[in-house]
Amino acid sequence: MSGPLRVLTLEAARKILEKFWHIKQHVEEASLEEAGGRILAEKIVSKIDVPPFDRAAVDGYAVRAADTFGADEGSPRRLTCAATIRAGDKQRLKLGKRQCAEIATGAPIPAGANAIVMVEHAVQREDIVEVYRAVSPEENIAKRGSEIKKDTKVFLVGSELSPSAIGTLVAVGIRKVKVYKRPRIAVISSGAELAKAGAKLGYGQVYDINGPTLCEAVKACGGEPSYLGIALDEALQIKALVRRGLAGCDAVIISGGSSAGAGDIAPSVVDGLGEPGVIAHGLAMKPGKPTFIAVVKGKPVFGLPGYPVSALMVFDQLVAPYIRRMAGMRPLAKLVMRAKLSRKILSARGRRELVPVKLVRKGRELLAEPLLKGSGAITALYMADGYVEVPLEQEIVDEGEIVDVVILR
Amino acid sequence: MSGPLRVLTLEAARKILEKFWHIKQHVEEASLEEAGGRILAEKIVSKIDVPPFDRAAVDGYAVRAADTFGADEGSPRRLTCAATIRAGDKQRLKLGKRQCAEIATGAPIPAGANAIVMVEHAVQREDIVEVYRAVSPEENIAKRGSEIKKDTKVFLVGSELSPSAIGTLVAVGIRKVKVYKRPRIAVISSGAELAKAGAKLGYGQVYDINGPTLCEAVKACGGEPSYLGIALDEALQIKALVRRGLAGCDAVIISGGSSAGAGDIAPSVVDGLGEPGVIAHGLAMKPGKPTFIAVVKGKPVFGLPGYPVSALMVFDQLVAPYIRRMAGMRPLAKLVMRAKLSRKILSARGRRELVPVKLVRKGRELLAEPLLKGSGAITALYMADGYVEVPLEQEIVDEGEIVDVVILR
Repeated sequence: MSGPLRVLTLEAARKILEKFWHIKQHVEEASLEEAGGRILAEKIVSKIDVPPFDRAAVDGYAVRAADTFGADEGSPRRLTCAATIRAGDKQRLKLGKRQCAEIATGAPIPAGANAIVMVEHAVQREDIVEVYRAVSPEENIAKRGSEIKKDTKVFLVGSELSPSAIGTLVAVGIRKVKVYKRPRIAVISSGAELAKAGAKLGYGQVYDINGPTLCEAVKACGGEPSYLGIALDEALQIKALVRRGLAGCDAVIISGGSSAGAGDIAPSVVDGLGEPGVIAHGLAMKPGKPTFIAVVKGKPVFGLPGYPVSALMVFDQLVAPYIRRMAGMRPLAKLVMRAKLSRKILSARGRRELVPVKLVRKGRELLAEPLLKGSGAITALYMADGYVEVPLEQEIVDEGEIVDVVILR
Repeated sequence: MSGPLRVLTLEAARKILEKFWHIKQHVEEASLEEAGGRILAEKIVSKIDVPPFDRAAVDGYAVRAADTFGADEGSPRRLTCAATIRAGDKQRLKLGKRQCAEIATGAPIPAGANAIVMVEHAVQREDIVEVYRAVSPEENIAKRGSEIKKDTKVFLVGSELSPSAIGTLVAVGIRKVKVYKRPRIAVISSGAELAKAGAKLGYGQVYDINGPTLCEAVKACGGEPSYLGIALDEALQIKALVRRGLAGCDAVIISGGSSAGAGDIAPSVVDGLGEPGVIAHGLAMKPGKPTFIAVVKGKPVFGLPGYPVSALMVFDQLVAPYIRRMAGMRPLAKLVMRAKLSRKILSARGRRELVPVKLVRKGRELLAEPLLKGSGAITALYMADGYVEVPLEQEIVDEGEIVDVVILR
């Protein structure tokens, strides 16, 4: 940080960040019990043929197809029933001429047999089976490998392991998989006025809302938060906590302490921790002015605003996509709902403004109600369903206009 | 289960089940670190006023408003700066007449002051501050309790604890909350042909796909699975595992072993475990024919089909909504996508059929491709994106028709 830094657009800030930070993904092995919801870090090929043997696709009689040729309602073929085979039976049979075996769905086809007569097309009396319909070779048999052949590619790198994906891994003989490690993200709150959740508030104190909120937000995008606590806006404390975060985590988030006010010293402290230090201070985005971005020892430090809604919105725009990337996840598609603006928005030229709104259904209409700035940082946190983006060069969005509301998740 | 049971529609089966089973929800206490994503089991009222004291809403000078009356660009008012107050400062000041204090956003308003002059409307030279704009009482002050008053209701029972909800709980002074316990669901697989994931397959064996798949599906709807393993379709094993499930869990799922084939004995075994026993066997739904539902000692036992896709689809229709309810969650809104059917569907009259389909984008069209029945139980598991419902009385859905695809989640 030599000299004052220009205010950057989000896109420009990202570009500079990615010049200095080489995003690393880490991989670990997980058993299938632990792998649900994780992201595959290897491609998966089937270890076996699926099904692994020729099996009955229906309940009925395993036969030599040729023994049934010509059979019909008027002239059944008579076969001798040599055995009953259930799914899971271990005995290995071999059928001779004119022999058949009663067989259950899923059971292995005995040697000699090459088709199954469905149970409704045969009548059994003691050990004699009358077959009333001819079958052709392979009829009603699920052949070994007919679904998935051994060594076939089943999943690509980056697949999310849904319940059915876990089932498919079992089916192809897998027991453990390589998945992306959840990136560890240090979360620090800065501000001399902050008290820990639930503590008795002293004179002039408010609770640290950002710490717990950002930890949950980190989890929600695939990261593992490590809450390092509150730095009371003193250089030594900020320095110690950011260093601890850099040592043990893949990235550091510090909120508060980054605006221009007296006592907001986080950017200069972080800048002193190593090269290149602070690479952007201030985003051409509202909220976002007090945001700073630094890279120290190859790891990023994100300085977010102190106001909870601002912190969460900048996190959503700037930080969450990187956490998802470190976690091997695909970019999250924006979830957008169209709604009618209930009140005019005035925005500053030259800054992209994100205006938090609450969605309200009114009759058949969906209204987007801008949350008043003055109405404060905390109430807006649980009232905001999403935000409306006002582009760089636009100053007014009129009441009654249909707007896109980006849903906060 | 006295005598053969009628095949029931899903709705009728649910009604009977709820006559015999009184759904219980359990509650536990969780710290905010553990509470993310959980469901509130108590209503929350604010423990404090938010903000907890009168605080500065902007950077500037705390003043007695009357001292600024009449100030404008041409005739500034001169005040004496008595102190600098940062957020978190502990000292308690009292301003006298014509005194002011430099103050940072978030800092407590000193006694005597009743407004803030924004920093851009004043000029300080040593300890003299010239005020160029008058302020009225309360201007630029966030009053104690102006956002949330102590004892105001903030969250209702049933709220899902999103990141911003966690932040709001912190803001109102909460440290621990009562949340619904995740219901424990026993998962049992039945079938003599089944082998554990990753084991070496013997003659005639296939992997138990349903166990791991259903465990993940249970997690996905808010439950905590307890996988009890494989019962080799013998009465004693099934009895022992279902009993273990009933003893330690809130509900039991057993898949396989419930069709009409030889060796499918689960329903009669479960029926013998206690009153009322099996209350429905067979759903008028495809897949679903081999499904059974029992209630034993006040807890439900769900018997699902052995085929993985069928098991997952019946789970989705029948079991998942109950797990969500036990977990305190709201019913999941069906996620439906409209698509063009790529191939005709033939369905049996008198049964509601759920046809698994794969969604394929082709140019600007979204196609729903029915997965061929014969193409097997396992491949369909990872190929199916959702299903098309064919109502009870319909027999054909034509190629090219626009259909609703219910997304499997």
